[in-house]
Amino acid sequence: MAHSTFRIVDVHTHMYPPAYIQILESRKTIPLIRRFAGAKDPRYIILPAEAEALDKSSADANPSLLPGRPVTSHYSSLAQKLHFMDTHKIDISVVSLANPWLDFVPSEQAGETAKSVNQEFSNMCAEAPGRLYFFAALPLTAPPETLLASIGHIRGLMHCRGVILGTSGLGKGLDDPALIPVFRALAANKLTIFLHPHYGLPNDVWGPRATEEYGHVLPLALGFPMETTIAVTRMYLAGVFDQVPDLRMLLAHSGGTLPFLAGRIESCIVHDGHLVREGKVGPARRTIWQVLKEQIYLDAVIYSEVGLKAAIDASGVDRLMFGTDHPFFPPLTSDEQGEWESMTWNSEAVKKAVGDGSDAAKAVMGGNAIEVLRLYETSEEN
Amino acid sequence: MAHSTFRIVDVHTHMYPPAYIQILESRKTIPLIRRFAGAKDPRYIILPAEAEALDKSSADANPSLLPGRPVTSHYSSLAQKLHFMDTHKIDISVVSLANPWLDFVPSEQAGETAKSVNQEFSNMCAEAPGRLYFFAALPLTAPPETLLASIGHIRGLMHCRGVILGTSGLGKGLDDPALIPVFRALAANKLTIFLHPHYGLPNDVWGPRATEEYGHVLPLALGFPMETTIAVTRMYLAGVFDQVPDLRMLLAHSGGTLPFLAGRIESCIVHDGHLVREGKVGPARRTIWQVLKEQIYLDAVIYSEVGLKAAIDASGVDRLMFGTDHPFFPPLTSDEQGEWESMTWNSEAVKKAVGDGSDAAKAVMGGNAIEVLRLYETSEEN
Repeated sequence: MAHSTFRIVDVHTHMYPPAYIQILESRKTIPLIRRFAGAKDPRYIILPAEAEALDKSSADANPSLLPGRPVTSHYSSLAQKLHFMDTHKIDISVVSLANPWLDFVPSEQAGETAKSVNQEFSNMCAEAPGRLYFFAALPLTAPPETLLASIGHIRGLMHCRGVILGTSGLGKGLDDPALIPVFRALAANKLTIFLHPHYGLPNDVWGPRATEEYGHVLPLALGFPMETTIAVTRMYLAGVFDQVPDLRMLLAHSGGTLPFLAGRIESCIVHDGHLVREGKVGPARRTIWQVLKEQIYLDAVIYSEVGLKAAIDASGVDRLMFGTDHPFFPPLTSDEQGEWESMTWNSEAVKKAVGDGSDAAKAVMGGNAIEVLRLYETSEEN
Repeated sequence: MAHSTFRIVDVHTHMYPPAYIQILESRKTIPLIRRFAGAKDPRYIILPAEAEALDKSSADANPSLLPGRPVTSHYSSLAQKLHFMDTHKIDISVVSLANPWLDFVPSEQAGETAKSVNQEFSNMCAEAPGRLYFFAALPLTAPPETLLASIGHIRGLMHCRGVILGTSGLGKGLDDPALIPVFRALAANKLTIFLHPHYGLPNDVWGPRATEEYGHVLPLALGFPMETTIAVTRMYLAGVFDQVPDLRMLLAHSGGTLPFLAGRIESCIVHDGHLVREGKVGPARRTIWQVLKEQIYLDAVIYSEVGLKAAIDASGVDRLMFGTDHPFFPPLTSDEQGEWESMTWNSEAVKKAVGDGSDAAKAVMGGNAIEVLRLYETSEEN
């Protein structure tokens, strides 16, 4: 098969199509995009801590103290995405809308917004044949029939291979029984869920010094992976993976912290008096280790050999998929058009963990994504 | 040296001396110990979710639905601790007061309470020569001079090798500059800090189904390790390890999630515009990886080969120390006087990760603790 040659695939890479940028520009509360006098690029303001800084900043503030991050051409330009891919020898990108997706869109607009955003992604993929596929966005705030209809729409889009999903679900998390029909519809259409964090943890866990002194390190480095871990563990405890056995889920940031904590989760389950009394720890129970190897895939965005090895040990080398998180984490001290450390740290980790040029490295860098996400043109309806 | 023979050491094992039990029995809010009619043992109620259940339960409630956990002889009996050690071939235990230590003791009583609790631990160690050492408890709610005086007291106790510390510090976390003199005093006296979680994460992150359906799994399996990770990362970002370069810290549960997330922490630091502009990401910066290998030790209480390997990869095999978390996680379906799975899962993980009987296994199972914590009788004052 043509798709068995070595190719590099990026499964964790975001884009903001122009229609989505317009929505953000029109908003008064986070997430929003705002222009400041004296700053070349508009700023994307997304985290609660940044909103505080926004309230304090005036339109003519010192540009180096402005809240948020600059919205460069890396955010929405297809040419720029392809340039980034070429610079880093990435053959195929599976692009997705970045957080917080459509979580904030009013219910009555959500269906149409999803349709137009997903159509824009579909058009971009068609403009770069063989280079781009995408994870669609779901209108989670819409009524159930609109939400299910949107799955009907995206299943007919030739380059759609799944959906990107946050952890809030319909407002009550991903262990909400009301989501089961959505998970069933996705699974029935072979649409993989790319689970991605956005909400982090409540701000006060970072302590009084965080906002002024630690930048965004704590919410991004710890809040995001912990949010993912909590969401998946709640799904596991609720029995979602058993109720929808053909559900497939790709977890951002190598599963948050799931590979490292799976043993502790198992220990806490078998030692929990309440669960044992309720008969939930019987011999038929699939452990979290089994679910990791049967229904979960992990991206390789963990920036270290230590983390990547643990992810591979937990999930299997056939379930890890390389990613970059582009356009986030741009280089701050070198040219944005050149090499990005956030890419090279992750590709170096793969080489160190499984050996440069090894079959395992080829699988993680692209082969797994091509097989699992069927990254080849096909005549069959997806 | 006599202490070079193979011995098994448990560095993570708790006790509640009688004086501390009395305090808990006298309390009306968590943490507290309460007796219920029809239940053999009193119950120890410690988590916010359990306090809710406590409010709903009557004194004659169905024993299988009572909140908290039974206070068995494993909590405070020295004979029981030695029996547990003998059953599992543990030669030496470094015992510590369990959470939440003295965090709740009124300021004016804290100094005296610490003194009596630490003296009780000291007496227990003297009753079992060569088998027991301890981490002392600090009166963190006391005035600074009382707190520093307590370090003067424990440094003179022959079997004291450090202190057990929660993450709240003096109320503002462990990145509070007011704690630097405390850290300096501990370091100057070669007293290792055993950092242990208690407060977890705010209850609402577990979602609406958690309390009724998931037992204590989420706060214990995820909240605890995340709390530890946040606390150490805040210390790192505040520069505590640089300010007190001889500070030594043993992290519970293999560092929470630190080994897995260290790469992401590093990436978030070097890509943080605020930190870069402030000059905090210069060439002289010690990375979190370096601090892990220079000032941090990890216990081996992670219940899996995957997690333990990552901990060893991050910290070095000479910095891991076996532990059990006794008397927590007792067996629910077999005799409490027999083997505990919570012990065997961790010892099996060591065998699988570094090879049964290997030098590395001997180091992790006991050798490291003996060397690092100086677990031998000595004529010098500690």
